[in-house]
Amino acid sequence: MAVAGATGYIGMQCAALVQRHPHARLVRVMGRSHAGERHCDAVPGSDVELRIEGSLEADSADVIVAALPHTVAAQHAGAWLSAGAVVIDLSADFRLRDAAAYERWYGVSHPAAELCGEAVYGLPELERDTIRGADLIAVPGCYPTAALLATMPALRAQLVEPVIVVDAKSGVSGAGRSPQLGTSFGEVNESVHAYGVSGHRHKPEMLEQMERAAGGSVRLTFVPHLVPMTRGILATAYMQPRAGVTEADLASAYESFAAANEFVRITAAPPATKLVTGTNTAAVHVGWQDGTAVVMAAIDNLVKGAAGQAVQDLNVRFGFAETAGLESRALWP
Amino acid sequence: MAVAGATGYIGMQCAALVQRHPHARLVRVMGRSHAGERHCDAVPGSDVELRIEGSLEADSADVIVAALPHTVAAQHAGAWLSAGAVVIDLSADFRLRDAAAYERWYGVSHPAAELCGEAVYGLPELERDTIRGADLIAVPGCYPTAALLATMPALRAQLVEPVIVVDAKSGVSGAGRSPQLGTSFGEVNESVHAYGVSGHRHKPEMLEQMERAAGGSVRLTFVPHLVPMTRGILATAYMQPRAGVTEADLASAYESFAAANEFVRITAAPPATKLVTGTNTAAVHVGWQDGTAVVMAAIDNLVKGAAGQAVQDLNVRFGFAETAGLESRALWP
Amino acid sequence: MAVAGATGYIGMQCAALVQRHPHARLVRVMGRSHAGERHCDAVPGSDVELRIEGSLEADSADVIVAALPHTVAAQHAGAWLSAGAVVIDLSADFRLRDAAAYERWYGVSHPAAELCGEAVYGLPELERDTIRGADLIAVPGCYPTAALLATMPALRAQLVEPVIVVDAKSGVSGAGRSPQLGTSFGEVNESVHAYGVSGHRHKPEMLEQMERAAGGSVRLTFVPHLVPMTRGILATAYMQPRAGVTEADLASAYESFAAANEFVRITAAPPATKLVTGTNTAAVHVGWQDGTAVVMAAIDNLVKGAAGQAVQDLNVRFGFAETAGLESRALWP
Amino acid sequence: MAVAGATGYIGMQCAALVQRHPHARLVRVMGRSHAGERHCDAVPGSDVELRIEGSLEADSADVIVAALPHTVAAQHAGAWLSAGAVVIDLSADFRLRDAAAYERWYGVSHPAAELCGEAVYGLPELERDTIRGADLIAVPGCYPTAALLATMPALRAQLVEPVIVVDAKSGVSGAGRSPQLGTSFGEVNESVHAYGVSGHRHKPEMLEQMERAAGGSVRLTFVPHLVPMTRGILATAYMQPRAGVTEADLASAYESFAAANEFVRITAAPPATKLVTGTNTAAVHVGWQDGTAVVMAAIDNLVKGAAGQAVQDLNVRFGFAETAGLESRALWP
Repeated sequence: MAVAGATGYIGMQCAALVQRHPHARLVRVMGRSHAGERHCDAVPGSDVELRIEGSLEADSADVIVAALPHTVAAQHAGAWLSAGAVVIDLSADFRLRDAAAYERWYGVSHPAAELCGEAVYGLPELERDTIRGADLIAVPGCYPTAALLATMPALRAQLVEPVIVVDAKSGVSGAGRSPQLGTSFGEVNESVHAYGVSGHRHKPEMLEQMERAAGGSVRLTFVPHLVPMTRGILATAYMQPRAGVTEADLASAYESFAAANEFVRITAAPPATKLVTGTNTAAVHVGWQDGTAVVMAAIDNLVKGAAGQAVQDLNVRFGFAETAGLESRALWP
Repeated sequence: MAVAGATGYIGMQCAALVQRHPHARLVRVMGRSHAGERHCDAVPGSDVELRIEGSLEADSADVIVAALPHTVAAQHAGAWLSAGAVVIDLSADFRLRDAAAYERWYGVSHPAAELCGEAVYGLPELERDTIRGADLIAVPGCYPTAALLATMPALRAQLVEPVIVVDAKSGVSGAGRSPQLGTSFGEVNESVHAYGVSGHRHKPEMLEQMERAAGGSVRLTFVPHLVPMTRGILATAYMQPRAGVTEADLASAYESFAAANEFVRITAAPPATKLVTGTNTAAVHVGWQDGTAVVMAAIDNLVKGAAGQAVQDLNVRFGFAETAGLESRALWP
Repeated sequence: MAVAGATGYIGMQCAALVQRHPHARLVRVMGRSHAGERHCDAVPGSDVELRIEGSLEADSADVIVAALPHTVAAQHAGAWLSAGAVVIDLSADFRLRDAAAYERWYGVSHPAAELCGEAVYGLPELERDTIRGADLIAVPGCYPTAALLATMPALRAQLVEPVIVVDAKSGVSGAGRSPQLGTSFGEVNESVHAYGVSGHRHKPEMLEQMERAAGGSVRLTFVPHLVPMTRGILATAYMQPRAGVTEADLASAYESFAAANEFVRITAAPPATKLVTGTNTAAVHVGWQDGTAVVMAAIDNLVKGAAGQAVQDLNVRFGFAETAGLESRALWP
Repeated sequence: MAVAGATGYIGMQCAALVQRHPHARLVRVMGRSHAGERHCDAVPGSDVELRIEGSLEADSADVIVAALPHTVAAQHAGAWLSAGAVVIDLSADFRLRDAAAYERWYGVSHPAAELCGEAVYGLPELERDTIRGADLIAVPGCYPTAALLATMPALRAQLVEPVIVVDAKSGVSGAGRSPQLGTSFGEVNESVHAYGVSGHRHKPEMLEQMERAAGGSVRLTFVPHLVPMTRGILATAYMQPRAGVTEADLASAYESFAAANEFVRITAAPPATKLVTGTNTAAVHVGWQDGTAVVMAAIDNLVKGAAGQAVQDLNVRFGFAETAGLESRALWP
């Protein structure tokens, strides 16, 4: 296997997980920065001794996990697929079926629009069966993963009105490893703020999935917030139950969902994101306040929201145990 | 003036503000802990050299600012008022007009239900005129202050449907200074979680004010979250504009509100709580996402959400400049 | 195996490590708090389903790992040993050979002074051979572990004068899980301070070991500092090389030490504590500034500084691979 | 007055302090970034409405406070002085009397070596009298300020041997506002590490001052550490008292020093940096451990370690009250 973009926060995590995977072997790491250096010399905490390759050629790898900026994976995906590789892409390039929406939200024309139809949305909890046969898997964004796990059981069972508010809180690592003023310690510690209020790039991806699940149009309001922590996303979803739907109906739908998905765990209390830090678990709490459903999902944005989910997709695609290489546990405190 | 409960986080802040107030003189500090010690020896950062008195007698103070646990101020308020003092109470005891609601939410019978009708809700942005004549002022809770400033202009002008979601994020100091597992560094750093999902004690207070403003019933869903920071609350309010209401209508209502209230500032971007840390300012951003109004208010929970608001109430009550003693500015970074 | 004191920060970590250990089986968890509850219900992040026992009887356990307040393990150790258990004690009770020093520093008479001579100091990097035959192992404190790993190679090889300054920086979890004002988020975030300047309880333990290694008296100045982070200790040791000793001599001594000890890793740059968070590794950097040796050791205070070291002792004592159950890696970021 | 470099962390703080100064008037702000914008639009928390000028010409300003990268102020200082301005420079350019040392440590030739002799070292606690007559004031670095305040009283009174270890802990803002990987939240939170172990640029400046004070050569070991907090420096100094010097002698020297300097405060307990955040105070604790003197100084690196000290220099130079414009108090919590 190869990991492309192996020196960013998501790629580092991918390399670490693949390196420890019982059924995979990491044979290549690629990245624009630090080309020529050993991965373990360039990346804190890495024990991968492979040298980082500057090129993104497919070469011999049978699986390529790509953690690259948007448009870059799309430029190479065709070649990778032609070379026989399974491509697991962590960028936004293949998450939307609608290439026009991609161009609207990302402000560039899609480098490989013809592949959008082939890609499978890599959220195993929704698409396990199609992932099994897919050669191009688009790993969901971190916010969509949390938001969809918080809302899908209710939407699919038609338990709630298709009018949803998702208020999400993310750690700083979601913005990547490239230094920016907005992720500098002095700017973000001891503070919280919203961003993307008028519309965040992850919204169309959520909407597409929600509307498929609901079988009709959904009105979604999604507002992300930046919280002074390194990892973690908490998505708090507010939904109106349809007439006659009880708290127990709702709880039951989520429990069934958790029973069918090893990485979804229902918690009796609202989950702290730290409970899932470093793990591929989504901790989901089903709450109820005066007739409104309030469902929270907590994930580690770099694991279940990115690299862990890519490995979970790998496991599903190749028939490994879905938890292979993903057994780590959170530290507390 | 006297400050009662002067060794908790809110009381410390009250003592510090009164000590610097140009028109007030701090003559007594009272508190159950550290009685007999000088305030500056018991409280980090204090330069108040008065000795802490263990008793809560009214004595000679003409104004008593009380930062005590609920029921304690209510037990003493009658005597304080009889002694001729103006009482500015930071507890929940006199915030609800409905003593029965108090008993339901706080699980105790109200020690001075007969005074509930006399108390004025000390949010100057709503009740400036009645505060001028009040002898018993109930300073709002920190969450209600943020939530009401984010929603009131829209509700009072009937611009939105009376169905509101407020997702609030608070720093840890809101839980007070008494050591608790839930506010220990190791438990809360690098994590975020919701609490009080089925109903938080600050909700009835918000509802009472919102319904007065809307002139009818309001359906409020309020979920607080704990964020790993010391100070600050960000309330994100989601509201559906009534038919025909535009983004400009909404913005205009908030701008008028800010123009009439020195401590309300409209920000062009979603405010970071750190922008108001240590200040009495509420930074409000009026956002819009695909037809939904998303309004945020950021305050320092210990200043505009508590001690600063108490001083603002003092200023209004005694005809001082509303900003007297409250000119401090936030540090950045 | 049994873990006593399984609900504190160190005991939680012990239970988690033993639960995953390939050659051990956790059969009992004991603790004064939460007795009767399942461990996983009482402790965040635990997946140990055993019920917490309130009693500290030895019963059937062949190994007891004790993470109890000082004096408590000492009161039970005799009975545990008589019942045939190997005792791995994480308290200070058996770390000092000199019971009089214990009484001076801890202000209580030693409950089992007769056992002090039997106990072996459980720092495998120093005492591997004696640990192999020990039935009572005193796991070093977190500060001593870091300080000794930073200084021992130099002291044992007589490379430095026996006049040492150790300036240590610790995360907040070192103070335990019981709520205290001094570990509350609002008190410690955005701040650093020293404590125990006139003398910290961990000093006699370090001195005893340093003097054994140096073969003579050592003058040690040790000052701990509290840093706003959850886990991690960084010990910075300042030492004067003896005449003729070069930077290369020093580096060589530490490299030999690391070569002989799997959990000691020499780093080219000064280590960040985060590089070892969640791991049993001690990252050691050998620096030199204008003729003064400056050696740093970074550990996770709850792992190499406590629970991990206890498991490492277990591995040594029973002839398991020294890294068994201790293979975890740090997360970055 | 003018502030040059007004959009960095130090310059922002200078502008804020000058803006509020009772005897100064801020008439110009200069900076390479954001030229043409209003300062308050470019800098969070600013209420300075002046437009940022891209040029560094002296023009009409009678005082120029320069918070520029090293070499930049030196390039302009001659012209500024010729135009009649008093120059208060926060860079390293004029701190060393020895231009050769400057070139060795900064790797560039000094742009105005001829001015080095005219500059006065702007630590009022040491150089108050010479500052009064100076037109070119070199504000000390943040580390030197803390280290010198912790050691000077002992050195000047010949109470300690001239062999000193200073272990310093700094918040992240000391590295400035330009985004860097090393100050990104995900890299520094929950971690502490040393840097500059073989020699930090602030060391020659400290040494020069210490040797002047001691009247002879000093052997200094100085190691800075990065702590996950925004503001604050704690310098812990380890010194060996000369024969016959007692703890009381030492305490007395520091108390005299504090009595003569309004911004130096002796604390009974080791100071937390947060106690001085946002203030110009240096909190100094004089400790003693088994015959070794351990003295700590805590300052806010951006205030007493930079902008506040510049204003203090301004006050001394122009005969204002030394505390003018510097009365702010720390927030706790």
